[in-house]
Amino acid sequence: MSEWEKNVRKVEPYTPGEQPDFTDMIKLNTNENPYPPSPGVIQALKETAADSLRLYPDPAASELVKALAGYHNVDPDQVFVGVGSDDVLAMSFLAFFNSKKPVLFPDITYSFYDVWAELFRIPYHRPRLDDNFRIRKTDYFQENGGIIFPNPNAPTGLEMDLKEIEEILVHNRDVVVIIDEAYVDFGASSALPLVSRFDNLLIVRTFSKSRCLAGLRIGYAIGSPGLIRYLNDVKYSFNSYTMSRTAIAAGAAAVRDQNYFEDTCAKIIDTREWAKQELRKLGFLFPDSRTNFIFATHPSCPAEQLFSELRKAHIFVRHFPQERIRDYLRITIGTRTQMEALFAFLQTYNRTIRQ
Amino acid sequence: MSEWEKNVRKVEPYTPGEQPDFTDMIKLNTNENPYPPSPGVIQALKETAADSLRLYPDPAASELVKALAGYHNVDPDQVFVGVGSDDVLAMSFLAFFNSKKPVLFPDITYSFYDVWAELFRIPYHRPRLDDNFRIRKTDYFQENGGIIFPNPNAPTGLEMDLKEIEEILVHNRDVVVIIDEAYVDFGASSALPLVSRFDNLLIVRTFSKSRCLAGLRIGYAIGSPGLIRYLNDVKYSFNSYTMSRTAIAAGAAAVRDQNYFEDTCAKIIDTREWAKQELRKLGFLFPDSRTNFIFATHPSCPAEQLFSELRKAHIFVRHFPQERIRDYLRITIGTRTQMEALFAFLQTYNRTIRQ
Repeated sequence: MSEWEKNVRKVEPYTPGEQPDFTDMIKLNTNENPYPPSPGVIQALKETAADSLRLYPDPAASELVKALAGYHNVDPDQVFVGVGSDDVLAMSFLAFFNSKKPVLFPDITYSFYDVWAELFRIPYHRPRLDDNFRIRKTDYFQENGGIIFPNPNAPTGLEMDLKEIEEILVHNRDVVVIIDEAYVDFGASSALPLVSRFDNLLIVRTFSKSRCLAGLRIGYAIGSPGLIRYLNDVKYSFNSYTMSRTAIAAGAAAVRDQNYFEDTCAKIIDTREWAKQELRKLGFLFPDSRTNFIFATHPSCPAEQLFSELRKAHIFVRHFPQERIRDYLRITIGTRTQMEALFAFLQTYNRTIRQ
Repeated sequence: MSEWEKNVRKVEPYTPGEQPDFTDMIKLNTNENPYPPSPGVIQALKETAADSLRLYPDPAASELVKALAGYHNVDPDQVFVGVGSDDVLAMSFLAFFNSKKPVLFPDITYSFYDVWAELFRIPYHRPRLDDNFRIRKTDYFQENGGIIFPNPNAPTGLEMDLKEIEEILVHNRDVVVIIDEAYVDFGASSALPLVSRFDNLLIVRTFSKSRCLAGLRIGYAIGSPGLIRYLNDVKYSFNSYTMSRTAIAAGAAAVRDQNYFEDTCAKIIDTREWAKQELRKLGFLFPDSRTNFIFATHPSCPAEQLFSELRKAHIFVRHFPQERIRDYLRITIGTRTQMEALFAFLQTYNRTIRQ
């Protein structure tokens, strides 16, 4: 090792999920939206693709912040925006989790939480989900340096009742509690109504799932003005101009196109509920998802093997190697046509393994 | 203060520079390029403004990385890309400056270096520029935890000779040395030829100045494969998908449009050299800039007052309040027409104050 390497921050390299690229593929592996961005977004992008890109963007991303504040009926000083919810969450870990006590998040959850904790050298503890993959609220009543979990949780898809979230908040007035609502638009209840009562509650959202814009990198957070101010102080110290002109304009347009957004979410929810029935017919078992994916296991098909077979057919789903969940596949809800192709494959596969 | 606020990271809030927005303004305050992005960029943006934005971008931003590697004649594993050079620099501070010894950078330099040091709690020391605003190489021979400075330096515009940079590197094989070449395309010599000999040298660049794309947020670094790997490990742990699909496509197109890039830089250099003559005629004094700005002072016009008068005329330049440089204005090189308007104002102003 060279001398200069001794003071380098060593982190366990995080390997981003596979991004296959075949023209004939059915991509159900990264919870993207199967529908294109709204017509307003396409229009906004065409209009910003011009001379203005030579100029720095508005560091406050006011157009986008105002659109989000209006949509959620909060003040603009309660909205923080970032380069995808990963950026918002990373900044939140850096800003809010500076205690010597461990930050708490579930053992099975979004795979980035422990990565950020390791990167910023934040102690953490991962309470175990119960045997039905549910978060046990009482695990979050113990002393801690902060709390974060997704609702609905990923990759389980399960929603926690708002009453339980409120109980967790009541037990944790002394730390920042982050609810990661990446998937909330697909039929779950948001904790947003609790923001006015708990100034330590931060809600994080993304444009990558329900708003069909994973490729543009937009995420945001809503919380008390005090919480948002701390987050902005850290963000402006890190990089004042994180949001590009195209992201600001297209993001604001996506928020304004409310009908398109609602229609798209409704279509995905419909497809999901139908997919649940089809999966049951095929003998799959799964927690009851309120997201744009289903986390399914099958008593007689090993998940890893099915994952490989699907892959050969250019149908991509997600498999996680961790012990408690390695018998499961996370299947993103695609279009009805894409799901039909998946089920056609599964029917044939089912017959093969029964023989 | 609420209980939860005790574990919040408190940082001196950084206030981003003013971004005035008047239709008739002459904006010479943030070193943007006065020319629009290249035709290829506009075309690339139009082509990505479509269905593909529903999908995550390539986390490795390979198209952009390969274009840059080809342009600089290095291997793709020697190139790191980020959301503007601020993102690249912030990640570099986080990755490389973890010593208990102070990081060194000049007292007068890019205003973000001490902000990142404060944010990440990195000790630092700022050797004083000499009385001609030059970096003294011997100040960087002392023991330290890393070195960073821009070449040419900002806001002075002065270039350090490559031989001196090499001497600094020879004295600092045990730490990471970052040369911030934000302005190098306007006629200065790059330290890139030294990368093959010093595996601890990181060169940082931006698309915001010479490539007319401040609004899209693209920066990059070039260094040894080892250095770039450490930087990518930190970046992937922070946010795997920092570069949007539009930034990747437009950035690669900007690199491919080499003629446009060279023409644009040549035009700005021409305008700058002519502007130097005009400023001299008006009695201004300035270090000899190799950048797209001139850092000028006038024996009889107080800078702050001139700044305000220019502002009233909707001509925006930059003034810094720090003691050693408060008699100076940093004037970005605009188009010839914009500079003519500036000089017309200054001529009238000169006559007024002489009366």
